[in-house]
Amino acid sequence: MPDILTSRFLFGPGPSNCYPEVTAALAYPVIGHLDPVFIERLENTCAGLRTVWGTSNARTLPLSATGSGGMEAAFVNTVADGDVAVIAVNGLFGERMCEVARRCGATVVRVDHDWGQPIDVERVLAAHPQPKVIAAVHAETSTGVLSDIASLGQNKGDALLIVDAVTSIGGLEVTADDWGIDVGYACTQKCLGVPPGLSPFTVSARAFERRIKDPRSWYLDIGLLGGYVGAVGGSGRTYHHTAPVSMIAGLEAGLHRILAEGLAAVQARHRAAAAALQAGLQEMGLELFAAEGHRLPSLTTVKVPDGVDSAAVRRYLLEYFSIEIGAGAGFYASSLWRIGMMGPNANAASVTLVLGALKEAIASA
Amino acid sequence: MPDILTSRFLFGPGPSNCYPEVTAALAYPVIGHLDPVFIERLENTCAGLRTVWGTSNARTLPLSATGSGGMEAAFVNTVADGDVAVIAVNGLFGERMCEVARRCGATVVRVDHDWGQPIDVERVLAAHPQPKVIAAVHAETSTGVLSDIASLGQNKGDALLIVDAVTSIGGLEVTADDWGIDVGYACTQKCLGVPPGLSPFTVSARAFERRIKDPRSWYLDIGLLGGYVGAVGGSGRTYHHTAPVSMIAGLEAGLHRILAEGLAAVQARHRAAAAALQAGLQEMGLELFAAEGHRLPSLTTVKVPDGVDSAAVRRYLLEYFSIEIGAGAGFYASSLWRIGMMGPNANAASVTLVLGALKEAIASA
Repeated sequence: MPDILTSRFLFGPGPSNCYPEVTAALAYPVIGHLDPVFIERLENTCAGLRTVWGTSNARTLPLSATGSGGMEAAFVNTVADGDVAVIAVNGLFGERMCEVARRCGATVVRVDHDWGQPIDVERVLAAHPQPKVIAAVHAETSTGVLSDIASLGQNKGDALLIVDAVTSIGGLEVTADDWGIDVGYACTQKCLGVPPGLSPFTVSARAFERRIKDPRSWYLDIGLLGGYVGAVGGSGRTYHHTAPVSMIAGLEAGLHRILAEGLAAVQARHRAAAAALQAGLQEMGLELFAAEGHRLPSLTTVKVPDGVDSAAVRRYLLEYFSIEIGAGAGFYASSLWRIGMMGPNANAASVTLVLGALKEAIASA
Repeated sequence: MPDILTSRFLFGPGPSNCYPEVTAALAYPVIGHLDPVFIERLENTCAGLRTVWGTSNARTLPLSATGSGGMEAAFVNTVADGDVAVIAVNGLFGERMCEVARRCGATVVRVDHDWGQPIDVERVLAAHPQPKVIAAVHAETSTGVLSDIASLGQNKGDALLIVDAVTSIGGLEVTADDWGIDVGYACTQKCLGVPPGLSPFTVSARAFERRIKDPRSWYLDIGLLGGYVGAVGGSGRTYHHTAPVSMIAGLEAGLHRILAEGLAAVQARHRAAAAALQAGLQEMGLELFAAEGHRLPSLTTVKVPDGVDSAAVRRYLLEYFSIEIGAGAGFYASSLWRIGMMGPNANAASVTLVLGALKEAIASA
């Protein structure tokens, strides 16, 4: 059995370490999914999610699946055979959107970008005259790039806008209602400081009206899930599936912690940590990958110097320091590192530790 | 915020209370989903699941979804438009199977039974000459009935057999390989004594070969998930989605606890608790619902006596004793109670407590 006392500094692309309140909440006594105490917990959680999503959408809930399940829920509820989906691709998760949408039957119009660049809003908008949906990733976990969702949303016309906020929610500004996001999905294990396993999900009234009425998926059917969280108005709560009560207790605690600190303060902490990290990496002579001006405050991508064995450095960090950083994704697997400063890790100590350890690892590995 | 110190005796249809080792494991330090320590944890978990499933299937894994997600995974990987699915319906979860299979495009041939009765194997086998799949529930959570899966599997012919083992896995005998189960799904929150959120899932080599090669669901695609758990042979582990690491730590601990006690001993404990409970209920003058000889050792259904307010009794139990028991399901919502003695709750103290409390509640509510 693995050493259960092993503790890691999780400075990769996620999961990040948890807030201590979250760890405690995971170990609360289990309660029934129909217990009044749990119903209140679920309502608190949905209310907290509305705040971090910047929305008043009634249908804002923690899906009982990971972020990739949230991506599938976004498409299966909005596109069916032959519906046109324009998808901005500037990294691995835009790629994945194309595959998920294709399986839902969509005619996918992909708008490719160089990895490391933000999406080109005009090109995405011009890709098709009347798409059913337009989809984009706010914060690309594979490249460390932030894209301008507000411009996309304000000019989307009749289309529904699907947004992946996996690496932004809770740590970066996301204002779904102002930006015109119709369907948003995220995950718990990055800036929210909660383990992986749930997908914070939000659906606008406009998207709900235009949803696929009999989607291929029963598990992710937002029509049924609205009942699960009691968002169907007068008719009350209906049983759908057994809620993952412990993970929801953890998410409630994470949201409570973040909102007690203040969303603006948490976001400022993420920005400050990223600025210090990015400056420190450049001072070490390393080159950042993501286009300047579009770098994420949650996850930094850095080029592996010529002649350095990327995997050996990561192994050294793990073995000598118990520090995890990420490899690159896809084509960049061995030529990039991804360093996340998310949730409780977005602080000065993490930055100093990872810079010092990385310097030593590059010299020694 | 709900009172986080609230503790419940969870004697409903699930979730049950957790084994203490599970509670501790949920609060372990989070580790990365690609960390060698986690890979070992996942492998241990899959090995433990093979034991409780009674299978050597390489593709035996904890799906990152609840039991209902496991049901969806079973159908989306085995049936596509026009494939015939014969489904035995003797309760709510057989009903749900029909709906999930229909959404996957299957032509559903349902074989209805009275609720409270086990499935009639001959009738199910005679329902269609050449179905692609036959599906049945081993232990119906809605009615408390056990059905004979071995007879079904041994006579299934060319069909693939899908089995719901949600309320049996870990607490009752399930031997997937001997019984001829091709695709099995379960949940964590009943006899395994782990919170809800994962679905123990197993797929035979035969079913894997005949799977839908490009299923509608990317998230639940067993072809991709085989890579996620490294079951694809020489090509090694491939990234699919971020594993829910904390829930998997909990499941590993639950399986470890059960296998240390011994699967036979755990099953005997469930049988003994159910026998005492069922005898005690009848001594109180209450009538059991499930057909005699087919009653579950995990979950007992009992008729609400004439003139007794079912909901008031449940409320009394919750408020005065912090005991949860379940209402009936569907048509029987207010005429049945469902009493589970599962996981750590399958013991003499739970039986004595629930019998005493129920007696008082019926007299007082």
